[in-house]
Amino acid sequence: MPNWLLVFGPVAIALNHFAPGHYALIFASAAIAILPLAGWLGRATEQLADRSGEGVGGLLNATFGNAAELIISLAALRAGLHDVVKATIVGSIVGNILLVLGAAMLAGGLRYREQSFNLVGARAEATMLTLAVIALVIPAAYSVLVGGQYAGGERALSISISLVLLAVYAMFLVFSLWTHPTFFRGAKASENGEQAQPWTLAQSLLVLAACTVAIAWLSEILVGTVEPTAHAFGLSNIFVGVFVIAIIGNAAEHSTAITAAVRNRMDLSLSIAIGSSIQVALFVAPVLVLASLLVGPQPMDLLFGKGLLLAVFVAVVITGQVAGDGRSDWLKGVQLLAVYLILGLAFYLTPQA
Amino acid sequence: MPNWLLVFGPVAIALNHFAPGHYALIFASAAIAILPLAGWLGRATEQLADRSGEGVGGLLNATFGNAAELIISLAALRAGLHDVVKATIVGSIVGNILLVLGAAMLAGGLRYREQSFNLVGARAEATMLTLAVIALVIPAAYSVLVGGQYAGGERALSISISLVLLAVYAMFLVFSLWTHPTFFRGAKASENGEQAQPWTLAQSLLVLAACTVAIAWLSEILVGTVEPTAHAFGLSNIFVGVFVIAIIGNAAEHSTAITAAVRNRMDLSLSIAIGSSIQVALFVAPVLVLASLLVGPQPMDLLFGKGLLLAVFVAVVITGQVAGDGRSDWLKGVQLLAVYLILGLAFYLTPQA
Amino acid sequence: MPNWLLVFGPVAIALNHFAPGHYALIFASAAIAILPLAGWLGRATEQLADRSGEGVGGLLNATFGNAAELIISLAALRAGLHDVVKATIVGSIVGNILLVLGAAMLAGGLRYREQSFNLVGARAEATMLTLAVIALVIPAAYSVLVGGQYAGGERALSISISLVLLAVYAMFLVFSLWTHPTFFRGAKASENGEQAQPWTLAQSLLVLAACTVAIAWLSEILVGTVEPTAHAFGLSNIFVGVFVIAIIGNAAEHSTAITAAVRNRMDLSLSIAIGSSIQVALFVAPVLVLASLLVGPQPMDLLFGKGLLLAVFVAVVITGQVAGDGRSDWLKGVQLLAVYLILGLAFYLTPQA
Repeated sequence: MPNWLLVFGPVAIALNHFAPGHYALIFASAAIAILPLAGWLGRATEQLADRSGEGVGGLLNATFGNAAELIISLAALRAGLHDVVKATIVGSIVGNILLVLGAAMLAGGLRYREQSFNLVGARAEATMLTLAVIALVIPAAYSVLVGGQYAGGERALSISISLVLLAVYAMFLVFSLWTHPTFFRGAKASENGEQAQPWTLAQSLLVLAACTVAIAWLSEILVGTVEPTAHAFGLSNIFVGVFVIAIIGNAAEHSTAITAAVRNRMDLSLSIAIGSSIQVALFVAPVLVLASLLVGPQPMDLLFGKGLLLAVFVAVVITGQVAGDGRSDWLKGVQLLAVYLILGLAFYLTPQA
Repeated sequence: MPNWLLVFGPVAIALNHFAPGHYALIFASAAIAILPLAGWLGRATEQLADRSGEGVGGLLNATFGNAAELIISLAALRAGLHDVVKATIVGSIVGNILLVLGAAMLAGGLRYREQSFNLVGARAEATMLTLAVIALVIPAAYSVLVGGQYAGGERALSISISLVLLAVYAMFLVFSLWTHPTFFRGAKASENGEQAQPWTLAQSLLVLAACTVAIAWLSEILVGTVEPTAHAFGLSNIFVGVFVIAIIGNAAEHSTAITAAVRNRMDLSLSIAIGSSIQVALFVAPVLVLASLLVGPQPMDLLFGKGLLLAVFVAVVITGQVAGDGRSDWLKGVQLLAVYLILGLAFYLTPQA
Repeated sequence: MPNWLLVFGPVAIALNHFAPGHYALIFASAAIAILPLAGWLGRATEQLADRSGEGVGGLLNATFGNAAELIISLAALRAGLHDVVKATIVGSIVGNILLVLGAAMLAGGLRYREQSFNLVGARAEATMLTLAVIALVIPAAYSVLVGGQYAGGERALSISISLVLLAVYAMFLVFSLWTHPTFFRGAKASENGEQAQPWTLAQSLLVLAACTVAIAWLSEILVGTVEPTAHAFGLSNIFVGVFVIAIIGNAAEHSTAITAAVRNRMDLSLSIAIGSSIQVALFVAPVLVLASLLVGPQPMDLLFGKGLLLAVFVAVVITGQVAGDGRSDWLKGVQLLAVYLILGLAFYLTPQA
């Protein structure tokens, strides 16, 4: 992605400030500017991954990638837009494992006949996603089955499950960064001679931080213009929440995961894609539930609609199958993308409530 | 199966023409005549499999086996019998992975302590089935959740998902026949010395074509008499659609898959059983939806009833577990057959609507 | 666990006889007395496991552990308390695979970086659990979809599925004890030099029998006081059925499975935990359904409530993922325990119906 595209960053900022009504133009320039930034972020992440193992590198990447989403969601929370926040959470979980991982496996599979990744780490991540699905399904089932019988039950369940998820996420970090980091490190990472000259640690961190800030800034502008732009094209609210914002918000992961796959570093690619979904489900979502007790007009619960839950469920089921044998090929990418497309069709055909 | 049973073929055809009211007699003679034909079809398929790899042989087999079902379903479609078509689709998917694969694993496991098959190909096929379940569940969920809010939504979703399925099926063929055929080829296939003298390619194709045509002819006679015969025995419509027609319609796959398993060629056995389910779900079903736009009194959608969807779901879940480790034993056969039996009991106890 | 705690056994029995109103005291002393007994039971089981393979040892253990539950459930059945029996069945299935296996994997994982177990046996057990879930879900789905259309349908389905389950369980015993016992035997079991002097067969059986009888006796006292004790602490009926009785009733498995895990005998640990769940689902539950035709005011069916079914479903799904790759670490234990905790929170917040 050529660096001169970076010039669209100032353009987006200027347009947003001086001509805020030109949604489609602002949207397009912010989106274009993000692409080279995401490329640089990917390069910095790869440099850090070389130092610290691919799992840690992927986790750093997922952390920085989701910082933008957390900031944006907190803004939406303050505005009381719980439905948008929930749609964005689901869209981010689903988008990372179906669209990002699917595109990475397809791109990697078109170049290599077969690619391998650390089976143990991938299975641990897939189990983490299953745990997340269970944590999101139980409150909804509770609401249907117990419902109004116990005032305050839904809120108490949402808050306590959020605390459980945060504790499990903390233990997952301990596991993947401290006690068992080798599970998330590719076997051939150190043999990979593609990187000509390694950056210093300071260089890597500086590029990472600068790109993150810039992407975060542009992401907010982008998201602010996504909805009016989308509506101008006749799309509904829930579709925008689940699909459009997620694709934009995860552009960084998208680009980095595909780059890693094309360089035959599938461990890094999986860590980015699945790790990002894990972080949204086990960290961002519970933090937003707890934060809603302090900011915003009313507390947000963990009750997701049936359509959103079904989307997360099918995405996690097929991801578990695809990630379960430590190898990938282009057909796996096609399978994940097909599920994403089917979900997209169903949400696209859902009229505004 | 002795060849003299072939004489029941002309008997069935003659009875059907001259004494069409003797349903049970026609049914029995057609069924008996199919057995040796299926045996010859299996032998021809094995000969072709020896030339082209077991995956391709299994796929050829599944294609020829399902040609009959497609013809019969098109006839039912023209008559507007959507419920029968859908029940037959589900019965065929479920029957191939539970009854055919279960019987093959049981028969093979009674002869060999443990049998192995190509893990990667089996997992790819299991993921394809999961994709099919998702594609069948989403329209039903859409119908429940969105329902009448958007006129035309269900039909648009059915047609667009059908197109996605056909595209994915085409890519699966490219994958299994062209880019990655070795995943569907048994490691020990070439070492198997049981075949005394190989047939020529022309001989194999001739036997395959002749048996297919004969089975197709007899299958139509068989299916035409199945319903009155079954009702004479006190069975309901939906049970006949899901179980009786599926068992008859898949007799060829059944016989060939068991023969392959007993000869310790589990890769061929799995390709036939799972491959046939994949073909029905990803090729026959969408083709019928699209064909219904041209033939028949009204278009058919992809909306399956909850009972049918649950049957497909549980069948695919347990098949994924059984096929996921590249080995089989007799207990796996028992487990698959037990699920088939439980589903059969539930449908058997369902009264006619 | 020090042996002098055994003195609490006579204390519990005496209190139960002479001061039956002191529920909490009786409960506490019976629970304390069970702990050393469970330890001795575990040691006797390990001795037998050394002789007969870990799978058989685990099965013996699961049989003796569940004998108490069967006796208690029969008493509840005679009293017509079908809801309590069903809650206990679900709690026992869920508790063994989430709490017992989770605690064992956590305890083992804190001592060993990674532990391995026989992949084939664990997968066979996980598939058996999936079969059990299907057998429990189908009657409930039948009831919702067919319902009152066919009088007697639910009872006929419950009885026939119970017979299928018993037949499959018998075949599973043949498989694990007779035709394929090595699948359930740990690779390193014979190399394990921790046991100083082996007991004689007579000694092992004597200790096993004595501990089983004592635990059975105390378990009944314990269960008799669990409900009033629990209510005194403000807990509801269903929570007590699913969680409190299950934890107490499976204390023996709990202790033995953790001891085995800490001694790096994960095959024994899995056989105990998953084997016990299998036995409850495929043996205890159908036996109770059939027994209810002879004892009790009215026959019990296999229809479980949606909340109970969802609990079993999510427990089996995550267990399948955790047990599917033949290795464990402390994070897997945390994941299983987190699901147990989430289910516990949901049932805890469910008010008495």
